[in-house]
Amino acid sequence: MRYEELTELAQQLRVDSVRAADAAGSGHPTSSMSAADLAAVLLAHHLRYDFSDPENPANDRLVFSKGHASPLLYSLYKAAGAIDDEELLTFRKRDGRLEGHPTPRLPWVDVATGSLGQGLPVGVGMALAGTYLDRLPYRVWVLSGDSEMAEGSVWEAAEHAAFEKLGNLKLIVDVNRLGQRGPTRHQHDLGAYARRLRAFGWHTIEVDGHDVEAVDKALTEAVEVDERPTAVIAATRKGRGVAAVEDQEGKHGKPLPDAEAAIEELGGPRFVRVEVEPPPAASARRVRDREPLELPRFELGAEEATRTAYGRALAALGSARGDVVALDAEVGDSTRTEYFEKEHPDRYLEFYIAEQQLVAGAVGLQACGWVPFASTFAAFLTRAHDFVRMAAVSRAGINLVGSHAGVSIGEDGPSQMGLEDLAMLRSVQGSTVLYPCDANQTARLVAAMADLDGVRYLRTTRGETPVVYGPDEEFPVGGSKVLRSGDGDKATIVAAGVTVHEALRAADALAADGIPVRVVDLYSVKPVDVETLNDAAGATGCVLTVEDHRPEGGIGDAVAEAFSDGRPVPRLARLAVRGMPGSATPKEQLHAAGIDAESIAAAVKLLVERIVAH
Amino acid sequence: MRYEELTELAQQLRVDSVRAADAAGSGHPTSSMSAADLAAVLLAHHLRYDFSDPENPANDRLVFSKGHASPLLYSLYKAAGAIDDEELLTFRKRDGRLEGHPTPRLPWVDVATGSLGQGLPVGVGMALAGTYLDRLPYRVWVLSGDSEMAEGSVWEAAEHAAFEKLGNLKLIVDVNRLGQRGPTRHQHDLGAYARRLRAFGWHTIEVDGHDVEAVDKALTEAVEVDERPTAVIAATRKGRGVAAVEDQEGKHGKPLPDAEAAIEELGGPRFVRVEVEPPPAASARRVRDREPLELPRFELGAEEATRTAYGRALAALGSARGDVVALDAEVGDSTRTEYFEKEHPDRYLEFYIAEQQLVAGAVGLQACGWVPFASTFAAFLTRAHDFVRMAAVSRAGINLVGSHAGVSIGEDGPSQMGLEDLAMLRSVQGSTVLYPCDANQTARLVAAMADLDGVRYLRTTRGETPVVYGPDEEFPVGGSKVLRSGDGDKATIVAAGVTVHEALRAADALAADGIPVRVVDLYSVKPVDVETLNDAAGATGCVLTVEDHRPEGGIGDAVAEAFSDGRPVPRLARLAVRGMPGSATPKEQLHAAGIDAESIAAAVKLLVERIVAH
Repeated sequence: MRYEELTELAQQLRVDSVRAADAAGSGHPTSSMSAADLAAVLLAHHLRYDFSDPENPANDRLVFSKGHASPLLYSLYKAAGAIDDEELLTFRKRDGRLEGHPTPRLPWVDVATGSLGQGLPVGVGMALAGTYLDRLPYRVWVLSGDSEMAEGSVWEAAEHAAFEKLGNLKLIVDVNRLGQRGPTRHQHDLGAYARRLRAFGWHTIEVDGHDVEAVDKALTEAVEVDERPTAVIAATRKGRGVAAVEDQEGKHGKPLPDAEAAIEELGGPRFVRVEVEPPPAASARRVRDREPLELPRFELGAEEATRTAYGRALAALGSARGDVVALDAEVGDSTRTEYFEKEHPDRYLEFYIAEQQLVAGAVGLQACGWVPFASTFAAFLTRAHDFVRMAAVSRAGINLVGSHAGVSIGEDGPSQMGLEDLAMLRSVQGSTVLYPCDANQTARLVAAMADLDGVRYLRTTRGETPVVYGPDEEFPVGGSKVLRSGDGDKATIVAAGVTVHEALRAADALAADGIPVRVVDLYSVKPVDVETLNDAAGATGCVLTVEDHRPEGGIGDAVAEAFSDGRPVPRLARLAVRGMPGSATPKEQLHAAGIDAESIAAAVKLLVERIVAH
Repeated sequence: MRYEELTELAQQLRVDSVRAADAAGSGHPTSSMSAADLAAVLLAHHLRYDFSDPENPANDRLVFSKGHASPLLYSLYKAAGAIDDEELLTFRKRDGRLEGHPTPRLPWVDVATGSLGQGLPVGVGMALAGTYLDRLPYRVWVLSGDSEMAEGSVWEAAEHAAFEKLGNLKLIVDVNRLGQRGPTRHQHDLGAYARRLRAFGWHTIEVDGHDVEAVDKALTEAVEVDERPTAVIAATRKGRGVAAVEDQEGKHGKPLPDAEAAIEELGGPRFVRVEVEPPPAASARRVRDREPLELPRFELGAEEATRTAYGRALAALGSARGDVVALDAEVGDSTRTEYFEKEHPDRYLEFYIAEQQLVAGAVGLQACGWVPFASTFAAFLTRAHDFVRMAAVSRAGINLVGSHAGVSIGEDGPSQMGLEDLAMLRSVQGSTVLYPCDANQTARLVAAMADLDGVRYLRTTRGETPVVYGPDEEFPVGGSKVLRSGDGDKATIVAAGVTVHEALRAADALAADGIPVRVVDLYSVKPVDVETLNDAAGATGCVLTVEDHRPEGGIGDAVAEAFSDGRPVPRLARLAVRGMPGSATPKEQLHAAGIDAESIAAAVKLLVERIVAH
């Protein structure tokens, strides 16, 4: 396209953004208008994308990190012929695909955006896939706002992208000077962003974001630089083209006051249609082998840490499946992903101590068809909570594994203890939460989780626990195991992970005292095994949960939820970590928290007595 | 001290670190040994601190961001005479104060560390207090490792510190080249860190971290630079001084293999005692006025958003109390902290879109005696989850306020909806979780939360809701309000926030259909009002919870928890947001999620029928 045509296209994108927001009665037209010239040049001259085949692995990726500028994205789709004008005007309407912020309800959207600062780290995941795994020549374009450059996650990504020499990553920063409530820190000081990114090892280009010729040259240069990531830092004006809003405070996130006049000021509607260049042909996705899975087998009665079983099972899964990738945040010797690294170094990605980038990397990889397992301490997954939340909005299939769960880690103290992770992961829409108690169970669950949808979480334990299941036992997701039961059971103990072994010891002690109890191993915390819990409740009348986790959001709540459909509810009691632990041995910690065998036995006695007395 | 003495002191710190870890059988002596010279020079020549009066507001702050190097910190305390050798050897022992990672169980520790990358952003909060609020000449020293420079939170802090010209902030980076599992990204390339920090606006000094004379000069220079933050970037060797571990991989986080030989190699025990310079006298904490509180009053039946009531109540609280500070992440026009900003601009802190720094800033401010209210969208508080978790370990008193809760925000879609915030905040140890449904209730709760301990959370709603309580009604934390009740109630509806109004409408419709129900407004989600819930359960036999939140971790779980002490449990059912919302109007969203009046009435009928049928 000639530059005059690009300018026309940009004006069309502005007009359509104004129209979409006006039809919706809400939205962010001014944030769209600032980036219209950038987007026009990108679409018409640089993006390689087959809109009729969004699954084409050779397509460029376009991550719209400033997701609130969705009117601009949807106007691009219209210009590319992917949606029609009628659909454009369904923006933000119920049951439509054009949500307030983009989600993969649209086939051309790989990941949801709208939580700022996530586009670049997710783009890093995609760029890693392109460079090191897919080995395909696609480029990853990330359109970012200037406000979101304040998010630390952007700098985690900037660091990792440069370190990994991601030449296929192209960041475009729309520096429109104004955030939601006023000027950004650096306003139109492009050099502030450029200096920072260059210091991190990026190639940077500063440009007038409304000069289509200059933008075209900048993007051409960005494409040519392929040994390191490039940022095009563009000075723009929010609301560009309409005097009533241009470069003015207080015009964020609302339709234009007079859309009709604005459209006229922008030169009225256009009907420019862009033939977007498809990706180069014959670049099929790399074949990913499948071999029979040979999980590690652990001997009954042996002692092994579930984190170790995880590492070994993941290595085995990696041998069986060429699409499995392991990611870690510089603690692979603790999470035991080091087993995978040793066997599959080409599919092991080290993210250093940057948990947001770790999870965002997994989201980016799965968008490119990989099956990522991202591991760190359970406690430090909280660092990436917003990324996990957005992964669900992205309909992303990712595996998260948190080690060092609970007080049972011992001396390191509360900063290292995952005590809130079950609450965090249970509350994620569509998630699966697994918490094995022994090595064979762990191995089976690792294999099972790889094939599920959504966010899958596995919680592992630092210390060794006895192997209580044979290597051929099966553990369906959504199931549980009844480890002790008899006709005269007076109570049910529901445990998972490290507390299963405490519960078994308590059951033995109680049996010796003439109080037989049922023990349920709730390895699938979400979904939870309603049927088994209901049977146990019916048979014993009361249920005691015991968990190495806070009393809120974990196993106690999961069991309570099983009885939240109006059915009769047994008496419930819960043991959990209520105080703030300090340093102590694992055994002392379990006792101090009141979740060891002794505490369980005492609680069962109180519960049974109370019922008898009632 | 002469340089030879400083070297002796450093060797003593190494010996004591080795001894402490050896006595504990765990810990991080090698990470302590790398920073021993830095710490020795800091303690003896630059820190101004009165160990006999840790509450002295003029004391320098020392934030040990590399918290795993706690043996070094405790060895410093011993050298300063704050603890004795006997206590040093209680390191990591049960009931001791010398935990694996430092916590405020020790009077000289302001904030817990151990989750890497948190020390600098918390230090920024303290430095802001010193510069803009306390106006005291203390310095904030942050000792950081090199691995943690990969955390985005460090760069959020670097940006904010330079932008706010925090000349009192002094970062010391112990670049010992080795992380937990191997080399860091930049190993001994000091320039990599210096270039990045300089690009963000810092003054940087590169130094050999084992040359005490050079370190002394560097810290002197750091003290002299007072117009911007300074980083001393020191090349060191992990395990310095003991050949068996020095600069070697695989020596992280474990006692030295032969402590006795190591101590001999280090020249044996010393008995250097440092007289630490106290802070300049006569610098008392700024007086913070208290005036009678005049909360805004809202008329019964009027419509007002709880977020607006929050903003107005906070402004009023700020007028009554000179110690209240408002913090926001560039969304003050949405959270409505703009009301506070207008009235108290000198106590309003803008953190831009950097939620980790927002919460860390609050933690730092409260450590200096301020009462911070940190606000952003509820959804984006998940970004700071790890900081909230660590705030609890720090015994920090902070107020967090999340706006735009739930699907009721409408068209913006799921990325902007706080749907997991109750789960996250309930699981924080010692937290309080409040969720008002009207403007007067909001105002009262804002006043109440300021005086509580621990992490306090208030959840606000975007849209307007009717005022159902008079301005003089009281709302004790831990209480609830019964809004409808009668002798023949057939069920109890428990709601909070926006669903209270849906529940009231449902109750009216049900009453008209001959099904009287009780309605409980559970404004205090944690602690929860066990007594009222128990009474309602006893009277009605079944309880339906309804919440604009995921089914996990929120009001349904909170009510279930009220019945988790072995008492008889009523039948329970819960309505919550189960699917993934898209864009729609607030009313459509509530209906689609099945939490509007119509859905509630239908659920009550099913529940009551089911019980009758049973």
